[in-house]
Amino acid sequence: FHNEPTDPDEAEDFLRQLYAEQPRLGVDARLVAARVEQVREQIDALGTYAHTRTELVHGARMAWRNSSRCIGRLYWNSLVVRDLRGVSGVDATAEQLVQHLQIAAGQGKNRGRLRPVISIFPQAVPGRSRTVLWNEQLIRYAGYRDGTGDPLYADFTEAVTELGWKGKHSAFDILPLVLQETGQEPRLFELPEHAVLEVPLTHPDLAWVAELGLRWHAVPAISNMRLTIGGVNYPLAPFSGWYMGTEIGARNLADADRYDQLPIIAERLGLDTTRESSLWRDRALVELNRAVLWSFERAGVKIADHHTESRHFLTHIAKEEKAGRTVPADWSWIVPPLSGGATPVFHRYYPEADLKPNFYLDENAK
Amino acid sequence: FHNEPTDPDEAEDFLRQLYAEQPRLGVDARLVAARVEQVREQIDALGTYAHTRTELVHGARMAWRNSSRCIGRLYWNSLVVRDLRGVSGVDATAEQLVQHLQIAAGQGKNRGRLRPVISIFPQAVPGRSRTVLWNEQLIRYAGYRDGTGDPLYADFTEAVTELGWKGKHSAFDILPLVLQETGQEPRLFELPEHAVLEVPLTHPDLAWVAELGLRWHAVPAISNMRLTIGGVNYPLAPFSGWYMGTEIGARNLADADRYDQLPIIAERLGLDTTRESSLWRDRALVELNRAVLWSFERAGVKIADHHTESRHFLTHIAKEEKAGRTVPADWSWIVPPLSGGATPVFHRYYPEADLKPNFYLDENAK
Ligand code: HEM
Ligand code: HEM
Repeated sequence: FHNEPTDPDEAEDFLRQLYAEQPRLGVDARLVAARVEQVREQIDALGTYAHTRTELVHGARMAWRNSSRCIGRLYWNSLVVRDLRGVSGVDATAEQLVQHLQIAAGQGKNRGRLRPVISIFPQAVPGRSRTVLWNEQLIRYAGYRDGTGDPLYADFTEAVTELGWKGKHSAFDILPLVLQETGQEPRLFELPEHAVLEVPLTHPDLAWVAELGLRWHAVPAISNMRLTIGGVNYPLAPFSGWYMGTEIGARNLADADRYDQLPIIAERLGLDTTRESSLWRDRALVELNRAVLWSFERAGVKIADHHTESRHFLTHIAKEEKAGRTVPADWSWIVPPLSGGATPVFHRYYPEADLKPNFYLDENAK
Repeated sequence: FHNEPTDPDEAEDFLRQLYAEQPRLGVDARLVAARVEQVREQIDALGTYAHTRTELVHGARMAWRNSSRCIGRLYWNSLVVRDLRGVSGVDATAEQLVQHLQIAAGQGKNRGRLRPVISIFPQAVPGRSRTVLWNEQLIRYAGYRDGTGDPLYADFTEAVTELGWKGKHSAFDILPLVLQETGQEPRLFELPEHAVLEVPLTHPDLAWVAELGLRWHAVPAISNMRLTIGGVNYPLAPFSGWYMGTEIGARNLADADRYDQLPIIAERLGLDTTRESSLWRDRALVELNRAVLWSFERAGVKIADHHTESRHFLTHIAKEEKAGRTVPADWSWIVPPLSGGATPVFHRYYPEADLKPNFYLDENAK
């Protein structure tokens, strides 16, 4: 449905809000009215309209600001926006996705100084075909039917294997990008090594953690959400920031249906796993999360701990309220999966609102 | 507003549901219709009606079953219901509240084998005065302005001090019950020692935990929620079960605005509290929760850990669904404040519905 004509009222709402909250754009009321008029004419003629560069940049930042599930929104206004509306075709798209990862991870002596980046590919236009990316995130690990790797990607791994991909069958094989032109076969693109910054896990006190052979990639780049700005849909607009440690240590490596490391770590710690009240799960979980934060910090790779990030989020709310805006938030996503009650975000409620611009996960985005 | 006339439709809804789900009551359709008719007549004449013993017992159990915020609902059908509708006046009420605590804690060789109990005092009747209890829970600790004790009860402590109460100024002084007859001065009732089962905290590995002088009471008895059954309100209906360890170890003793023990424990553990990423809060939290579970278990006092209780809750959902009922639940209350992501209740959504009978916190219940 992203290919439906743009709603002119949504366009107008967006434009008026944008120019109202960005007075430095120097646009007076008459100019806004003229822009709105122009956009309505474009929609009448073409079914949609094109954003100016300013509208695109600020629209993407507003979309981040409106992401109710994101605890990391303090820096919404410094999002780096890559305007790739002119890029199409599987080869050019793949090249730009690789470049996204390099810019996001930092280069040269800035390697590891992660920056929040979004890459915005062509908008949906009624009746026009487009280049589709299959991947949920730009970097993810393969999962094999024998349990090796990340079980969450077992189906995806099977699909790319049928397309000819051959994994090394390690626990951390980087999946290829899969890009597809309408009506054509999907094409695979291996991510070059320099595009993927990874951190092997060690632990400040427990030397044996290194022997577990765990690692994770530095850049979480979500690539399956549709960006919508003023009624215009951008089906391919991957974005990335940096990790909050718990995403890796309390979910990706810990969940029973992901890497399921808690029983392994508890055994190495010599904990009594026959009784829940020994809290062996909780103790293993804390050590795993210490390993994540310690390893990233030692490697000079930006990461946030959940206590600091929670405080930043409350700072964000205070700043936004000062600017006259409320901050919609989804409690169950904002409160971290580790020591929730010990973070300040736990002890309050949040308004829930679906503000636009925003990001949406479409059921049939693939 | 509990004194408003009973809504006859709510009464009928309750009666029909009750007799439908309790076929063993042996009530056929005609008898139900007759009971409904009789209740409607009572409401017409008196503004409200009286429950039969069966309606009271099963109604209270349904209220527990419908408590969206309660993870402990697996045993809803074995709730012990004390029918105290004939008890009024501050002295008789105080006596029964003490008895509630004794029954709940178990007596003689059953001391510590906690049982879920509710004590139901007279229903609200339009225009009739009643005996009011000030306490939020039957057992709580005083808080003093110098920071000693539980800061949550500093206002309450001040109020009872003005009424003549003298605390020992220890960190764990049991507050008195405060009961009030309409139009009269409130009266204080000290809880006798045998009514309050308490557990001093020790730790399986860390001997110094005993030196912190921490303790908690065994029976959590909420006494400020109105029970509503079939349109009838019971303003005083204290209920109690047993603790889930995290309520004590991850909230009461841990919250910065309660006993705030994490910095103290972290210091004793020798953790680096200058950097959040050392996860000192998380480590102290786990040790505190181990101490709680260990101490209760060693003292033979019933307590639940959050992993087991989470599993029980999923069992409860399965049983209820088999009985053709959905289980309304409030995610942010159900997911424990410690290691949320490591409990199975985290990884799903729940229907949210306000089903009756239920318990309500009235703003001006006092
Ligand atoms: C800069 C560092 C960032 C941090 C620390 C951060 C943190 C988080 C966390 C912890 C989540 C929950 C993830 C989960 O539980 O699966 C989340 C979700 C989300 N974030 Fe951020 N984020 C960051 C940057 C960004 C950026 C740059 C954007 C977009 C421009 C963004 C948009 C979102 C969205 C849309 C979600 C919801 C994803 C979903 O529904 O699956 N975040 N973020
Ligand atoms: C038998 C053991 C029980 C356990 C382990 C248990 C567990 C819990 C927990 C952990 C909470 C959340 C408390 C908080 O975060 O402040 C809760 C809330 C609640 N429980 Fe239970 N519960 C039990 C028995 C009962 C009984 C017997 C009743 C009523 C008959 C009940 C009704 C409620 C209600 C109404 C709430 C919400 C309280 C509020 O809104 O402040 N529970 N329970």
